[in-house]
Amino acid sequence: MTATVGIDIGGTKISAGVVDEDGTIRQQVRAETPAREPDAIVATASSLVRRLAAHQEFEAVGVACAGMVDAQRSMVRFAPNIAWRDAPMRAMLEEQLAVPVVIENDANAAAWGEFLYGPARDINDMALITIGTGVGGGVVLDGKLMRGAFGIAGELGHMRVVPGGFLCGCGNRGCWEQYGSGSALVRDARELMRTAPGLALNLIDRAGGDPEKLSGPHITEAAKAGDPASMELLSDLGRWIGEGAASIASILDPSMFVLGGGVAAAGHLLLEPAQAAFRRNLSGRGYRPEAVWALATLGNDAGIIGAAALARPESR
Amino acid sequence: MTATVGIDIGGTKISAGVVDEDGTIRQQVRAETPAREPDAIVATASSLVRRLAAHQEFEAVGVACAGMVDAQRSMVRFAPNIAWRDAPMRAMLEEQLAVPVVIENDANAAAWGEFLYGPARDINDMALITIGTGVGGGVVLDGKLMRGAFGIAGELGHMRVVPGGFLCGCGNRGCWEQYGSGSALVRDARELMRTAPGLALNLIDRAGGDPEKLSGPHITEAAKAGDPASMELLSDLGRWIGEGAASIASILDPSMFVLGGGVAAAGHLLLEPAQAAFRRNLSGRGYRPEAVWALATLGNDAGIIGAAALARPESR
Repeated sequence: MTATVGIDIGGTKISAGVVDEDGTIRQQVRAETPAREPDAIVATASSLVRRLAAHQEFEAVGVACAGMVDAQRSMVRFAPNIAWRDAPMRAMLEEQLAVPVVIENDANAAAWGEFLYGPARDINDMALITIGTGVGGGVVLDGKLMRGAFGIAGELGHMRVVPGGFLCGCGNRGCWEQYGSGSALVRDARELMRTAPGLALNLIDRAGGDPEKLSGPHITEAAKAGDPASMELLSDLGRWIGEGAASIASILDPSMFVLGGGVAAAGHLLLEPAQAAFRRNLSGRGYRPEAVWALATLGNDAGIIGAAALARPESR
Repeated sequence: MTATVGIDIGGTKISAGVVDEDGTIRQQVRAETPAREPDAIVATASSLVRRLAAHQEFEAVGVACAGMVDAQRSMVRFAPNIAWRDAPMRAMLEEQLAVPVVIENDANAAAWGEFLYGPARDINDMALITIGTGVGGGVVLDGKLMRGAFGIAGELGHMRVVPGGFLCGCGNRGCWEQYGSGSALVRDARELMRTAPGLALNLIDRAGGDPEKLSGPHITEAAKAGDPASMELLSDLGRWIGEGAASIASILDPSMFVLGGGVAAAGHLLLEPAQAAFRRNLSGRGYRPEAVWALATLGNDAGIIGAAALARPESR
């Protein structure tokens, strides 16, 4: 069986794994993301791949990168948190590694992983919505990853949902990710702690009394333990997610929405309100088939697994 | 050269034409849309095709229909203004006409026409936005019409742009078509006539003093003649269109937006503000290639021409 390597370059860590054709990770290694410069990142990624090469054979490398990747999958045009612009990642890595390399946006790579090996493995059209710091997206239509004319399709989180709304890292106001992300969840929870502390005792306790110390996992853990305020916060978040997904359904009409990202660890506490809001806001509801919803199953490995699959000869 | 027939079934009239491979209409006939029942509509459409068959040869028929068409392109699931639900249009027409028939959503058919023979004929990825009574859409990605898992993709006008906004014919609130359509233009103009008549003298004049008699063409004609209020109304409409298109770009990343539909007769008075708002609201602007904008060129014939092209053997 032929294996490929998938690398996931995130803001804090870089993971690399050797992945089989069936999506199984044979071996995985990690390092902290170094100084946010292309050269240092390429050096760290290359050394991870060399560590894997000592034990495994593989024929190509796929890289999942936060940021906008060009249509030729060779270059990172721009990433919000990393100081590269038009960085020729593919050429830099191919020079280091002497195997074929492809670059893909991280949410696209994750979507491809969930499509091949996750809940969407038996269907043809899906939209992955990743709920983390932001709202990411990756879309598969008719069995193909949707890339767009310039390679930047599927940035679902930057659909505007509120005119004149919260300012977004992309420079606009009112983007979906300002309302449907883990950051939005934490923002709302902190506001609740300040303005209605009587309702937020459980959260105040978990955060040691300091709203600024509250994190997303505090809220999902409190909700899972039955804290009504935290369940309500997740439900409000789910509503924004479902309402946005209803707009996505009008545009893309997928047969499945897959909910992934760190906040999807909340499971049905997030999925159910999202799905309810989706149904309520679906254009033409009652007259059309309705997409099903599922939780992502590959977790943090989706990027590695998807990137490795994209590096396979038939996908390159 | 092999010809096919395109039929465009609208709320008020049915048009049918024999179309060459190069998109030229050889002959065209029209009738009023009869009582809004499938049987009567099929009978009228069939008689139009028989009139054409007396003079021309053709090998298949494509039908552009307002409404949701299923993924097999055989059935109209639901149309807002016509009393059919799950009407087996293809079978009904094939029985009458004894040639192969395909059914397609009207905006999708128009998009296919503009893609093959209009401003997008040299590119691979485009989104058509039709500004008429509503906001319609049709999308071509990588040279293929985007249909979605259930055949209902590209309903761009039902993306929500204002939470809790105006009620829409689809049952939701705040759909794009409530802000970016010809109906929105007329609604705003009537409001201006009532609340600020001093600014709307030109429109009041054209409508014979009665806001309810004002129509879209009154506004575009006034704007073309230099009426500042009408130009401003078109500019406001263009802003909604451009802002919505910026969201569409985040999702689909086309290389061209084509503006069609009746209100696009306003030409650059609508296109320029739309494009300016698009640029201002494009996520990642300055870091990414920007889609170009063009006016549709096939006018009212886009549906016939596109439907005829979809009926060609290689597209069926």
